[in-house]
Amino acid sequence: MFEEAEKDPTLDDKQFAKLEDALRTDLLVEQYRVLKQGERTLLVVVAGIDGAGKGSTVNLLNEWLDPRHVRTLAFAEPSQHEAERPAMWRYWNAMPAKGHTGIVFGSWYAPMLAEARRENPDTQALKSMAAAIVRFESMLAADGVEVIKLWFHLSREAQQERCARMLADPDTAWRVSEADLQVGREFERLRMAGEAVISATHTTAAPWFIIPSADENWRITATARTVLQAFRYPPKPPVVESLAPMETADRFAGLDYSSKLAKSEYERRFARATARVGRAIRRPAFRERSLVLVFEGDDAAGKGGAIRRLARSMDARQYAIIPIAAPSDEEKARPYLWRFWRHVPARGRVAIFDRSWYGRVLVERVEGFAEAEDWQRGYGEIQDFEAQLVAHGAILLKFWLTITPAEQLKRFRAREKTPFKSFKITDEDWRNRDKAPEYREAASEMLARTNTPQAPWHVIATDDKRYARVCIMEAVAQALEDGMGISDPE
Amino acid sequence: MFEEAEKDPTLDDKQFAKLEDALRTDLLVEQYRVLKQGERTLLVVVAGIDGAGKGSTVNLLNEWLDPRHVRTLAFAEPSQHEAERPAMWRYWNAMPAKGHTGIVFGSWYAPMLAEARRENPDTQALKSMAAAIVRFESMLAADGVEVIKLWFHLSREAQQERCARMLADPDTAWRVSEADLQVGREFERLRMAGEAVISATHTTAAPWFIIPSADENWRITATARTVLQAFRYPPKPPVVESLAPMETADRFAGLDYSSKLAKSEYERRFARATARVGRAIRRPAFRERSLVLVFEGDDAAGKGGAIRRLARSMDARQYAIIPIAAPSDEEKARPYLWRFWRHVPARGRVAIFDRSWYGRVLVERVEGFAEAEDWQRGYGEIQDFEAQLVAHGAILLKFWLTITPAEQLKRFRAREKTPFKSFKITDEDWRNRDKAPEYREAASEMLARTNTPQAPWHVIATDDKRYARVCIMEAVAQALEDGMGISDPE
Repeated sequence: MFEEAEKDPTLDDKQFAKLEDALRTDLLVEQYRVLKQGERTLLVVVAGIDGAGKGSTVNLLNEWLDPRHVRTLAFAEPSQHEAERPAMWRYWNAMPAKGHTGIVFGSWYAPMLAEARRENPDTQALKSMAAAIVRFESMLAADGVEVIKLWFHLSREAQQERCARMLADPDTAWRVSEADLQVGREFERLRMAGEAVISATHTTAAPWFIIPSADENWRITATARTVLQAFRYPPKPPVVESLAPMETADRFAGLDYSSKLAKSEYERRFARATARVGRAIRRPAFRERSLVLVFEGDDAAGKGGAIRRLARSMDARQYAIIPIAAPSDEEKARPYLWRFWRHVPARGRVAIFDRSWYGRVLVERVEGFAEAEDWQRGYGEIQDFEAQLVAHGAILLKFWLTITPAEQLKRFRAREKTPFKSFKITDEDWRNRDKAPEYREAASEMLARTNTPQAPWHVIATDDKRYARVCIMEAVAQALEDGMGISDPE
Repeated sequence: MFEEAEKDPTLDDKQFAKLEDALRTDLLVEQYRVLKQGERTLLVVVAGIDGAGKGSTVNLLNEWLDPRHVRTLAFAEPSQHEAERPAMWRYWNAMPAKGHTGIVFGSWYAPMLAEARRENPDTQALKSMAAAIVRFESMLAADGVEVIKLWFHLSREAQQERCARMLADPDTAWRVSEADLQVGREFERLRMAGEAVISATHTTAAPWFIIPSADENWRITATARTVLQAFRYPPKPPVVESLAPMETADRFAGLDYSSKLAKSEYERRFARATARVGRAIRRPAFRERSLVLVFEGDDAAGKGGAIRRLARSMDARQYAIIPIAAPSDEEKARPYLWRFWRHVPARGRVAIFDRSWYGRVLVERVEGFAEAEDWQRGYGEIQDFEAQLVAHGAILLKFWLTITPAEQLKRFRAREKTPFKSFKITDEDWRNRDKAPEYREAASEMLARTNTPQAPWHVIATDDKRYARVCIMEAVAQALEDGMGISDPE
């Protein structure tokens, strides 16, 4: 795949001069068009042989474009602050808004490239890294972020020569790094690593481009043309195949809404579970974990009360409650999951979501806020997101709280009558109630499709509040103890 | 000031039970009212004697309020990521949106309290810390964030007794910290430190309240009542005195717009200055500093071109360009300066602002987007913000680029004719041009009021682009070299 690039093609200054003006104008025209449109983000991932001129090409690109609307995102070893969250968090966090262009150094390819250039790379690890990257980039592509990936390449001789030339000039010597100088010895391994990574992650949704880099004129021209092409003709987002329809049984039909607890049993069990949660979270082992709780369910099914009681078992300095309402305009300008990623808790912390990323396959589906293909791909994206949380040590529980229509009506009426609660009941709640069958269907499908072993749903009938509270608190206690491999002595 | 609290008043359970229900309801009613209104943030700063029950009171407050709209902000020693920015950055960064309530542990009082409890506190340092805090809190108060500060207090004997009682119970022993246990020996010093800090920072805009804490019932009731009072009757923001009118001479009348540079001199000086900037930023000493550049000025005076050329002298991984446009809704929900604080660069980094916090006293003043009292207090707030940047090591330069009306007209017409630039010229630019005298007056006053020695304005006539570019690049080079106490050898 590198044959052409290793021929080190050149472009003489005269030819370059002829191309330069038109390229610069075209780039600006297209950049402004994309900016004005404000519908997509272009992310340019920069990779390749060390010492091939990546840095200076990016600097030039910034100069040719209007740099005010370009974000150069450079990542090195994760800082402590970054290491406390899943690996992809820092890339999510830095996502430029739609209309803008991002240039990414030290991207999500860094770990895969490091593995691939080892003497005996772990092929299984490479495979799963590639799969994760392809999922990530496909999701971005489907969500308005186009990713193009540039591999700067040149022959071994040209690389050595370029470094020597730069070292000789005091104005460029600082650009030559230790890594650049070591390429000579490791060229073949780097080359093979590049080949492996590119073949495993080249997709129509997020393609790789090889940039012959020995000659500056050629390198610049090829880079500019590639970016221009991406502005003009975004890579095709992956075709989202319609999900096979699922014969989901009504998940709520068989549910026993009549479970009840007597006051004395409730008090005993609830106090015990609360203490177990408190103790588990204070354990030193929890400093390496985190706890993510998701509350979804019928209106007036008691999410707020459940959250308040959970919070009570913890120190306020340790948890954050994240109520999910309409997205802000900063959130709207980014892929759907961004507004949840920004609240992913650090190690040793608790995040309680009052409604969550499941909005995509519930309210957005039912109310028609999301296209069918968008909410349909939501299931997979959600599972992927949750898998990343869990892989990083999060203990994740999802609660679906449900009540009978009769009980809901009773609670709505009670809210209307209590002065300070009346604000909790709006016309929308009544409208949602009218759409109960649609919501029920969406919820049933969601429960079936996202009830993974690592992030199971707890469906809890809450007509009896005591029963519900005990179920929730005991489930959290159990998950914490299981997750940390402890059994509570009490 | 602590006599009452050290009497360790108590409230028996019966009386407490009578009060509790009403207090809880009232708190919820008021919290929802403030939330629904969405016009102000309440920040509750928690301080006081260690082991007085601060933590458990805050937990209870979270339980009485709807915790979904409360953010508990707990700060410890600054992490590296925080230490790389000015001390107040982390408090700005965590600012809850309007409508929400924040509870702050380890607030901006921590350094002052640490100083005050030393054996021989530095009174001069305490004075300036107090002044900085008062300015900060007054600004917040004027900008929709009310700050109340709670000092939890009890007698020495009660504190010792409370710790002993908690240590005896396995369910509360974990709450007792090393600091709590040491209070006995240092009680008198802590008490005096509290007194000093409270007297120096108690203002009508951000008052202190002393919470007698020996008895849990009393402590909870006093806290809840204080918060309730703050919801109901926000502290009075400080009266902003109208600024004495300033006889500002027209700053632009005497300016020489005819300065010109010949091409050869331009090329020589520009290349030299560019190299100086590049070298200065690559020095190890710069890793302890940062560079903040502000570009303001007439439309079409060449801000974009100047920024592009500056960027060219640096590595794209090192700088961020921040174009300031209309605030996002997340920005609108917070004090004015928040949207600039979020972009304050870390050490070793460069931030280039294309328009800036000066919008408050320019466009917002002229267009009537800000009330007179708001833009008038802007001058002081801006100076304070800039002083914090400089105190933390930032090298700060502010450029005002100005052109003659004739030259502006020429550039507007040229923009209209260039296809990809026509998007840069809008009806608004023409309208602004009609308001030139008002803008000129506002700019003159701003230059006069904010031209501080540490953050001087560079007013540059840009009719001749060569002259302007050299002036800017040389000014940046000089400021970097002066700031790091180096002289460029070349």
